[in-house]
Amino acid sequence: MFQNLSSDTTTKKSDKASTARLRGNVAVRLIGQPLQPFDRPSIPSNLRIHHEPESTSLTDRLGGTYSLEYDSLNENVKKCQYAVRGELYLRASELQKEGKKIIFTNVGNPHALGQKPLTFPRQVVALCQAPFLLDDPNVGMLFSADAIERAKHYLSLTSGGLGAYKVAEFIQRRLSASYLSYHNDPELIFLTDGASKGVMQILNCVIRGAGDGILVPVPQYPLYSATISLLGGSLVPYYLDESENWGLDVNNLRQSVSQARSQGISVRAMVIINPGNPTGQCLSEANLREILRFCYSEKLVLLGDEVYQQNIYQDERPFISSKKVLMDMGSPFSKEVQLVSFHTVSKGYWGECGQRGGYFEMTNFPPRVVEEIYKVASIALSPNVSAQIFMGLMVSSPKPGDISYDQFTRESKGILESLRRRAKIMTDGFNSCKNAVCNFTEGAMYSFPQIQLPPGALQAAKQAGKVPDVFYCLKLLEATGISTVPGSGFGQKEGVFHLRTTILPAEEEMPEIMDSFKKFNDEFMTQYDNNFGYSRM
Amino acid sequence: MFQNLSSDTTTKKSDKASTARLRGNVAVRLIGQPLQPFDRPSIPSNLRIHHEPESTSLTDRLGGTYSLEYDSLNENVKKCQYAVRGELYLRASELQKEGKKIIFTNVGNPHALGQKPLTFPRQVVALCQAPFLLDDPNVGMLFSADAIERAKHYLSLTSGGLGAYKVAEFIQRRLSASYLSYHNDPELIFLTDGASKGVMQILNCVIRGAGDGILVPVPQYPLYSATISLLGGSLVPYYLDESENWGLDVNNLRQSVSQARSQGISVRAMVIINPGNPTGQCLSEANLREILRFCYSEKLVLLGDEVYQQNIYQDERPFISSKKVLMDMGSPFSKEVQLVSFHTVSKGYWGECGQRGGYFEMTNFPPRVVEEIYKVASIALSPNVSAQIFMGLMVSSPKPGDISYDQFTRESKGILESLRRRAKIMTDGFNSCKNAVCNFTEGAMYSFPQIQLPPGALQAAKQAGKVPDVFYCLKLLEATGISTVPGSGFGQKEGVFHLRTTILPAEEEMPEIMDSFKKFNDEFMTQYDNNFGYSRM
Repeated sequence: MFQNLSSDTTTKKSDKASTARLRGNVAVRLIGQPLQPFDRPSIPSNLRIHHEPESTSLTDRLGGTYSLEYDSLNENVKKCQYAVRGELYLRASELQKEGKKIIFTNVGNPHALGQKPLTFPRQVVALCQAPFLLDDPNVGMLFSADAIERAKHYLSLTSGGLGAYKVAEFIQRRLSASYLSYHNDPELIFLTDGASKGVMQILNCVIRGAGDGILVPVPQYPLYSATISLLGGSLVPYYLDESENWGLDVNNLRQSVSQARSQGISVRAMVIINPGNPTGQCLSEANLREILRFCYSEKLVLLGDEVYQQNIYQDERPFISSKKVLMDMGSPFSKEVQLVSFHTVSKGYWGECGQRGGYFEMTNFPPRVVEEIYKVASIALSPNVSAQIFMGLMVSSPKPGDISYDQFTRESKGILESLRRRAKIMTDGFNSCKNAVCNFTEGAMYSFPQIQLPPGALQAAKQAGKVPDVFYCLKLLEATGISTVPGSGFGQKEGVFHLRTTILPAEEEMPEIMDSFKKFNDEFMTQYDNNFGYSRM
Repeated sequence: MFQNLSSDTTTKKSDKASTARLRGNVAVRLIGQPLQPFDRPSIPSNLRIHHEPESTSLTDRLGGTYSLEYDSLNENVKKCQYAVRGELYLRASELQKEGKKIIFTNVGNPHALGQKPLTFPRQVVALCQAPFLLDDPNVGMLFSADAIERAKHYLSLTSGGLGAYKVAEFIQRRLSASYLSYHNDPELIFLTDGASKGVMQILNCVIRGAGDGILVPVPQYPLYSATISLLGGSLVPYYLDESENWGLDVNNLRQSVSQARSQGISVRAMVIINPGNPTGQCLSEANLREILRFCYSEKLVLLGDEVYQQNIYQDERPFISSKKVLMDMGSPFSKEVQLVSFHTVSKGYWGECGQRGGYFEMTNFPPRVVEEIYKVASIALSPNVSAQIFMGLMVSSPKPGDISYDQFTRESKGILESLRRRAKIMTDGFNSCKNAVCNFTEGAMYSFPQIQLPPGALQAAKQAGKVPDVFYCLKLLEATGISTVPGSGFGQKEGVFHLRTTILPAEEEMPEIMDSFKKFNDEFMTQYDNNFGYSRM
């Protein structure tokens, strides 16, 4: 159990300082810092933080142990890996407390890095939160007329306003009729507290035990690996091809499925993240057709994580929803492939992460199954209502002629065009380094350069007891304040290292950030590469 | 598998009309109606809605079945019971669509029944949602100066505002220092999207499998029974004593624990709901001490569901937090009993259900365990930020001298005093019926009268294929529009029937509602009681 894969050496001591630090670590993780996803190292090796038993454990006291100790926790909770959080994020937070300037590019959290909220939606939600404002004759001095009208309209449809448990039917109907949907049934649209909760709900229905496998791309956003662990299922990886711009090859899929089946795993579902996270690639229509055919022939439920669908930075492959492609394929596919599509208010040009709003849409789900999903969803009563309003606004934003249209368009375009420029700045910046190869960020919010590390660095990492990319990222952090997530958190091929950073820092700061990175990287390479040439292991 | 415990006769047909109705049922459950909790019938019998296989199932098609059918769902999802939702709530929604006036007294959802939100908090949150308002010179025309100041303060502490993933440390600190806490550590306070999510997180850590038992009061709020099912654990019931105003007798606890252990179950934790739901009883300090001693000697984690702590309608037993009692008991209890306390913004006099805000506080949890809980919580990134603001406002409301103090006090007192009056109106109203016995609603938001049903009614219920209290509640609904939840949804002794209604309808409508109930009840009794005397089975 105590495999020393962690290099967090402080946790090996059981003295007071260590306990304090541990508590400090926990404190730091809890307190008001931007959060980063808990990332999983290269599959299948795990990186865990291990602790010596606390010296104040009840084994030393009269009365024996606590009922709930580490050892008596649900095993799946312990197995569930979000390992990298500890090292990079903790270190970044510690350094920040010590006064170092940290650039938190570790999580897709746009507003935390200065992106401004869109004005119109915030006006509407503010009015919905404070409906008494609408009775004030002066309300027009602070709010635009169309925001006032929209708020009145929404309030008329939500009896009890934002304070009542409510699933907003009119939003489900709007979603079903929107460009996001395609011949859809409002009853099959479930509003959720963010897309992640929806993913967990669906996986919880699918996974019956360790014998159930879920196909997950590698690299992947570790919501999937962590949730599958937590639910006691099996993750069946399929590798994206870095040399093909992280393209998906159906042969890889077939191979993964065969291998899983030969191990007695029943492969139940497949996840695609489109655009990808951390990889950013956008699937073509042909790709989607291939995938849907594959799901049809292999009887897989397709989970289409489409949360970044507004974040597209190239014109060759615009976003097309899996739902649309499926419907266009016609029978038998359109009637038989089971699909769940996920979307959110957290990403795109809205970036409203803190509101926790999202939804999923089911296709070809039998009523009895929908009912069970609904039953479980109802235990938590309803998703938060202001986020539902954001979702409604997202699919019903100001139209030409509306008072707020110009402002809304200007704000949205401004954000998207800047993201596109930043995607390029980062990609080019990484590619200008001899030891980095970076696929272009076609979509989403991240850059995921491959960093080729010289043998000297691999050796130093080993001596420090750290996974090489963690070692590199820690050095980067300490030298520059840039807080990234090592590629091992997302999965990568053995011996190939990456880091993930967001493209979210303010555009005017980007050149300096990239220069800072390059300076660090040159120094790192100089330090660890004896020949000033280097090999990729 | 197809035990006909359901009397939803429409689901037995497999014709188109049935399918449509089924879909209609699902539609009704999904659309914008106030939700009701999914309630569990008398323990241990289950009430399930069963369906004939859909005629369009893929078993009829080329290609075989779907991957995700009812049969291949996670068993725990299917086992998880929230059965009563189907009958009462569906029927209420259908009737509402047909134009009948329905009084939804089925869920503790104050704003949906006309309770107004408190003004000051809504001003603050509205300003936080639209920070650009603070730059407008006219903001003071619509917002009070102290709300403006508070919003500025909160925004200064939440970089990225409400749109960023964030756990608000300053709110954790405020909670730890507040009257709600007692020598507490902000690191051990976890903000959540509503208290229910927190309960699920904790139970997910405790329950390793069916061998783990959780002591749950009967009657209980079925979040507990449903979650324990979902997680594959075992519910160990302890009966509250209706004749002692739903009091808790430690001997009942001991008996339940013995019985469970004799069945090989490891009893890990105990739930108390204080004030109770649906029962309303408030635990005395002596009670709490007894319970804590019991948890100490039996090594149980105590889950203290204290969400209704502001809703107290008698003066003999004011609310005392489990935490305070535990700390006051001193060593060894205060150092060894593991406690998790839950609170929310949904209840009290705030009633902000739709915001989905809450928190839990852990006492005597080893750091390694806290870390695991934090790890899993982080998968969902952060709870929604505006609800965190509500939580902060709840423990830091306007003080004497503040501009909004009088208004806030007036609004809060108005709501609480009215709730107290309504609790009495309902209790007295039920008690004025010969066949009803209703304990006084000491706290929370519900009335839970026992309804004594004559043999004729029991017979009629049997013929209709319905559990007797479901039968009664359906008749009540159809006659009066009053939508309640049958006691079988919460658990009750065999042969003893109750219904749960909220005390939330507007005070001025209460007398009419109670008259309406009494008229129905008299007619029901006349219809089904041949002797005009009746026996309790």
